[in-house]
Amino acid sequence: MSGYTLVQPDCPVKLNQNECPFDVPEELKREIVDEALASNWGRYPGFVPLETKTAIGQRHGLGPEHILIGNGSNELIQSVFNTSVSQGDRVVLPAPTFTLYALVGRIAGAEIRTVHLNRDLSFDVDRLEEESAHQDVRLVVLCSPNNPTGSMIAPEDTARIAEATRGLVVVDEAYFEFGGVSCIDLLDRHPNLVITRTFSKALGAAGLRLGYLVADPAVAREIEKVKLPYNVNIISLIAARKLIAQEALIEERAALIRSERQRVFETLWDLPGILPYPSHANFVLFEAERPVSEIFHGLIERGVLIRDVSRYPMLERGMRVTIGLPEENDAFLDALQKVLAA
Amino acid sequence: MSGYTLVQPDCPVKLNQNECPFDVPEELKREIVDEALASNWGRYPGFVPLETKTAIGQRHGLGPEHILIGNGSNELIQSVFNTSVSQGDRVVLPAPTFTLYALVGRIAGAEIRTVHLNRDLSFDVDRLEEESAHQDVRLVVLCSPNNPTGSMIAPEDTARIAEATRGLVVVDEAYFEFGGVSCIDLLDRHPNLVITRTFSKALGAAGLRLGYLVADPAVAREIEKVKLPYNVNIISLIAARKLIAQEALIEERAALIRSERQRVFETLWDLPGILPYPSHANFVLFEAERPVSEIFHGLIERGVLIRDVSRYPMLERGMRVTIGLPEENDAFLDALQKVLAA
Repeated sequence: MSGYTLVQPDCPVKLNQNECPFDVPEELKREIVDEALASNWGRYPGFVPLETKTAIGQRHGLGPEHILIGNGSNELIQSVFNTSVSQGDRVVLPAPTFTLYALVGRIAGAEIRTVHLNRDLSFDVDRLEEESAHQDVRLVVLCSPNNPTGSMIAPEDTARIAEATRGLVVVDEAYFEFGGVSCIDLLDRHPNLVITRTFSKALGAAGLRLGYLVADPAVAREIEKVKLPYNVNIISLIAARKLIAQEALIEERAALIRSERQRVFETLWDLPGILPYPSHANFVLFEAERPVSEIFHGLIERGVLIRDVSRYPMLERGMRVTIGLPEENDAFLDALQKVLAA
Repeated sequence: MSGYTLVQPDCPVKLNQNECPFDVPEELKREIVDEALASNWGRYPGFVPLETKTAIGQRHGLGPEHILIGNGSNELIQSVFNTSVSQGDRVVLPAPTFTLYALVGRIAGAEIRTVHLNRDLSFDVDRLEEESAHQDVRLVVLCSPNNPTGSMIAPEDTARIAEATRGLVVVDEAYFEFGGVSCIDLLDRHPNLVITRTFSKALGAAGLRLGYLVADPAVAREIEKVKLPYNVNIISLIAARKLIAQEALIEERAALIRSERQRVFETLWDLPGILPYPSHANFVLFEAERPVSEIFHGLIERGVLIRDVSRYPMLERGMRVTIGLPEENDAFLDALQKVLAA
C-alpha cells in the first residue's frame, strides 16, 4: 500500500496546499501563548475539552455534546471510519475527491465504491443516492466544496443521500467559508449526518492541526469512544477557543479570497488553451491543452508551486492553484502566461 | 463497546495519571514559545518533521529514518495496529496491562489473546513466547515497565519473544527513565521490535501530547504509510526538539522520583494491611485488606486522588499511586494512615 505523500520543491510562491495566506494576527498569537505559558504543561489536557467544545458549539448555536475536537479534521474522519466500518463494509465516495478518505478506508478494510462526478464536475446525486442505499454501506463521505474540483453538493441533495442510506454520511466542510453553504442545519432531521470543519483553511491555523465535527449527540458519543483520549494538546485547545470567536476577521479574510478567486478565474478563462472550473473553495481547478507536467514544472522554474492533480480520476489535464494574496496570485498568473508563451 | 473513560474528582493532590509533578521550566517554555511566535501558524508543518526526528534520533545514536513522531505514543501504537492487524488476526497482550492496547486492538478487529502475569506480577515469559509463536499472531505489545504493576521484562526475554513470533513486538517504554532498561539496542538483531517512548512522563510534557517510536527503517516506513500526514502541530514539534536535549534535567528529575518511590514503597510496606509491589515506574501498585472503594474514597475526602485499578484482571484489591513531589507523597501517606485508622 502506498501512503499519502507530497513532493515539495522550495518555491517563493506556495499555492499548493490550500492554506490561508495570512498568519494568525500577532496580538492573537501573543494572547494564546500567554495563556499557554500560564498553564502547567506537565499535566494531561482535560479528559473532555469542555471549554473549547462549548466555544465551538456556540458558534453553531449548539451545545458541547454535539462537538468533537481533533488534530485536524482528518483525525476525526479516521475516527468515523473506525466507528462505522469493519472489514468488507462498503464506503461510498465521489471521484475525484480528497485522496485521504480512500486511504483511511483501505486501512479500515472498507470496500470502496466510487461514483464519478458528472462531466462538468458536479456531484452525480442520483448515482450517489443509488449506491448509498445498498444495505452493506456503512459510510458515505462527501467533501463540499469538493477538493480538488471546487464543486458543491446542495444540502437538499445531501439530505436525499442521508435519507437513502443506513450508514453515516460525513460532509467534509473544510472549505465552507469560501462557499457559504452548510449541512449543519440538516442535523435535526438527519441524525446520521456528521459535519467536519477545519482550522487549516479560512481560520488560518494549519500549523496547529485542529479540526472539529458536529453531529447528533448520540453519534458523537459513539465516535468519541474510538477516538484516542487526550488527543489534542493544551496549546491548540487554547488557540481553538480563541480563533473560533474571531468571526469578523475570518469573514473579512474569506471575502478577500473569494474576490481574488473570481479575479483568478476570469483571468484564466481569458487565457487561450486554459479551462478553469468555477470554484466554491479557496482554489481553482483548471485544465490546459499543453501537457500538465510542462506547465507544472515551468511554473516551478518561475518560483510558483501549484498542485498537479492529473493522477486523479477524470482530471488527466488538471492542475489546482490555491488562491493566495493578490501579489501571489499575480505572480502565478504572470508566470503561467510566460510558460504558455514559451 | 465502551471507550476509555476517566472520572476525575477535583483534588488538591493529584496522583492518578502518572504525570510528572514538575512543569517544563519557565525559561524553556519561553524559548519554545518564542520560536513558535516567529513561525507562520497558517502553514502546514513539514511533510516529514526532519529536524525533530533528527534531534530524537541523536538521543539514541540513530538516524531520523528510525524515528516516527506522534500525538502521544498512543497515536503511534494505534498506527502499529493499523499497519499489522486485520480482522481476526491475533494480538498477544499480558494482563493486567495498559487498557488502551486492547481498546485499539478491538477497533482494529483483532482477536486479543491475553497471558496473565505470574502471581508476583512478573511477566510469564514462557507463556508469552508460546502464544506469540502462533502463526496468526501479528502483534505482541509489552509495556515495560508495565502499567499498572510497575514490573519489567528483561531485554533477553523480549528478545526471545521477538525471535518466536512472525509478528511485530511493540515495547512501550513510556516509563523507561524510572527503570533504566531499554530494548532499543536489540533493534539491530530483532528488526521486528518497535519501541515507543513518551514526553508525558519523565519528560514532563503530558499537556503537549508527544510521543515517538524507534524502529527498523523499513518497519518505520510501513508504519508511516498509515499514519495521518501532518499529525503533530508546529508548537509541539518545536517543544519536542528542545525537550529531548534536556538530558541532565530529565535525569535529575527522574532520580528524585526514583528516590521518592523507594521512600513511599518502604512506608507502605510498614503499614499493616497494605501490600505494595516493587516498581520500576513513577507509580506504586499496592493492595489492601480493606475494600478498595473505602480507601479510594477515603483518600478523595482527604484531598488525595489516586487510581482504583481493582477492575484490572488479578488486581481485585489493587490501587495505584503516582509518585509526586515529596510533599504530595507525604500528603498521600498521611491521608492513607488516617483512612486506615478511621
